[in-house]
Amino acid sequence: MDSRPIGVFDSGVGGLTIVRGLIELMPDEQILYYGDTARYPYGPRSRDEVRRFALDIASWLVEQDVKMLVAACNSAASAGLDHVREAFPDLPVVEVVEPAVRAAIRVTRNRRIGVIGTELTVASGAYQKVVDATRENVTLVSQACPRFVEFVERGETAGPEVIEVARGYLAPLQSQDVDTLILGCTHYPLLQGVLHFVMRDAVLISSAEETAQDVYAQLTRRDLFRIADQPPVHRFVSSGDAATFQALGARFLGPEITAVEERTLGPVA
Amino acid sequence: MDSRPIGVFDSGVGGLTIVRGLIELMPDEQILYYGDTARYPYGPRSRDEVRRFALDIASWLVEQDVKMLVAACNSAASAGLDHVREAFPDLPVVEVVEPAVRAAIRVTRNRRIGVIGTELTVASGAYQKVVDATRENVTLVSQACPRFVEFVERGETAGPEVIEVARGYLAPLQSQDVDTLILGCTHYPLLQGVLHFVMRDAVLISSAEETAQDVYAQLTRRDLFRIADQPPVHRFVSSGDAATFQALGARFLGPEITAVEERTLGPVA
Repeated sequence: MDSRPIGVFDSGVGGLTIVRGLIELMPDEQILYYGDTARYPYGPRSRDEVRRFALDIASWLVEQDVKMLVAACNSAASAGLDHVREAFPDLPVVEVVEPAVRAAIRVTRNRRIGVIGTELTVASGAYQKVVDATRENVTLVSQACPRFVEFVERGETAGPEVIEVARGYLAPLQSQDVDTLILGCTHYPLLQGVLHFVMRDAVLISSAEETAQDVYAQLTRRDLFRIADQPPVHRFVSSGDAATFQALGARFLGPEITAVEERTLGPVA
Repeated sequence: MDSRPIGVFDSGVGGLTIVRGLIELMPDEQILYYGDTARYPYGPRSRDEVRRFALDIASWLVEQDVKMLVAACNSAASAGLDHVREAFPDLPVVEVVEPAVRAAIRVTRNRRIGVIGTELTVASGAYQKVVDATRENVTLVSQACPRFVEFVERGETAGPEVIEVARGYLAPLQSQDVDTLILGCTHYPLLQGVLHFVMRDAVLISSAEETAQDVYAQLTRRDLFRIADQPPVHRFVSSGDAATFQALGARFLGPEITAVEERTLGPVA
C-alpha cells in the first residue's frame, strides 16, 4: 500500500474528466492535479516546448511526492513522455492515447476505428503512431472537431445546435463505416450523449475510462493502493487564474472540485 | 424544452450510479430520486409485490411532476413495467435491462455475452428474456455474484480480497469465452476497475452509462431538455433512514448527494 497522491496533469481543465474516472474507480485515492491553464492550449507550441513543460510539471509533482504520474493531456502524449520516464525511472507513468487505442482494437469488429480530436491532435498523428506500433491490421480514420471544445466549455452538451455540428463532423466517419470511435480529447466525455445519439451503431471509447482502468491495473500490480481511515483530500493547482479554473472545472468534475491554488512552474510565454 | 425533474427510483442506493451517469451526460437536468430502502432488497419479494411497489413509487413521482421515469432497478425491470406504462401512457419510461442488452449485442464479436448480477436477478432470467425478444443469434451466459454488493457497500473496490472473489466469479464466464460482459446490477459500476483487471479482454457494458444514453436520446427526440439559468437542484428521498442513505449514497454519487428526505409510500412489510 502507498498513501501518497496520484499526480495528474493537463494543459488545462480537460484532464479533470480523467480525475472523474479515477475517483469513480478508486474513491480512496488522493489526487494532486496540475492544470497549466496559463499556457493553454499546448497545441500551437513546438514539440520541444511541450516536452519541456511536461518535464517541469512532472518534476514539481515528484517533489510533491506523488506515487504515480498521469499525463491527462493528448498534446503531451503526442510530444512523447520518454524523457519524463528517463528522468524518473521508478515512477509509473500513464498517458491517455495508448489505453484508448488498445481498448478500440479490443472492441472493433470490422477493424475500422475512428478517432476525433482537436485539429492539432489529429494533425500530430499521435493515434496513428500508436496504432502502427501495435502492428494490428486496423484502419484508423481521423476527424478534427474544432468546435466541440467551445460547446463543452460553455456547457452546451445538448440541443439542436451541438447535434447539428456533431452530425457534420461525424458524417465522414460514418461513411467510412467505422464501428468504434475513440474520443481523442479529454473534453469529449461530456459529449457522449450527443455522440452516441448521432453514431448510434458505433462503440464509444472514452480515454478517461480507459486511462482510469490502466491506473487501477498498475496500482494493483504494484500494490500501491491507498488504505486510510480518512477520506481523501484532493488538491487542484492551476498556473492561470484560480477562479476561472474552479468555475470551468466544476463542469468537468462536479462538486468534488475544491479550492484551487495558483502556481507558476516556468516562464509564461 | 421542459424544466421539470427526471424521476429515478430504485429499491435502494444502487440506482445512484444511474444518477451519476445522468449528471455526467446532462449536467443541467434536475433529478428526483426515490430509494425504497425500507423495503430493500426487492429480490425476495413476489413479482406482484414488486409491481405494486413500482406503481406506488411511479404514482408519487408523477404527483411530483416528473417529466420522465427511470426505473434504475433490475428487480423492477425484471418484474415488468407494463402496468406503469399503462397507468401513465404519456410518461416516457426508461429501464436498465434493455439498454444494456442492446449495447452488448452491438459490441460482441463472437456473439457470446456474459451477464453478472445478484442471485435473484440471474434467477429471474430477465436478461435472457430481453435477449430472446431481440431474436438476435447470441448466447447469454449468466453468473450470480452474491458477494459483490457487500464489497461495494463497505467501499472495498480494490485489493487482493475483492480480486480473488472476482476471479472466482468470472472464471466460468472466461471459460465460456464471452467477449462482452454486462454489469447487471447497479452496484457494479464501482467494480469496473477490478472487473476489467480480471477480464482484460472483455468489453464491459455498464447499464448506468447505457441507460443515461437512452435518457439523453429520449429527451432529444421529445425536445424535453431543461434550459435554465439556475444550476439544477437534485432531491433525494428515501423510505428508510435518511442518514444511512446519505452516508452510503455518497459512495455511489459523491458529494452531489445532498440532504435526504424520509418518506414512506406504502406499508413497510
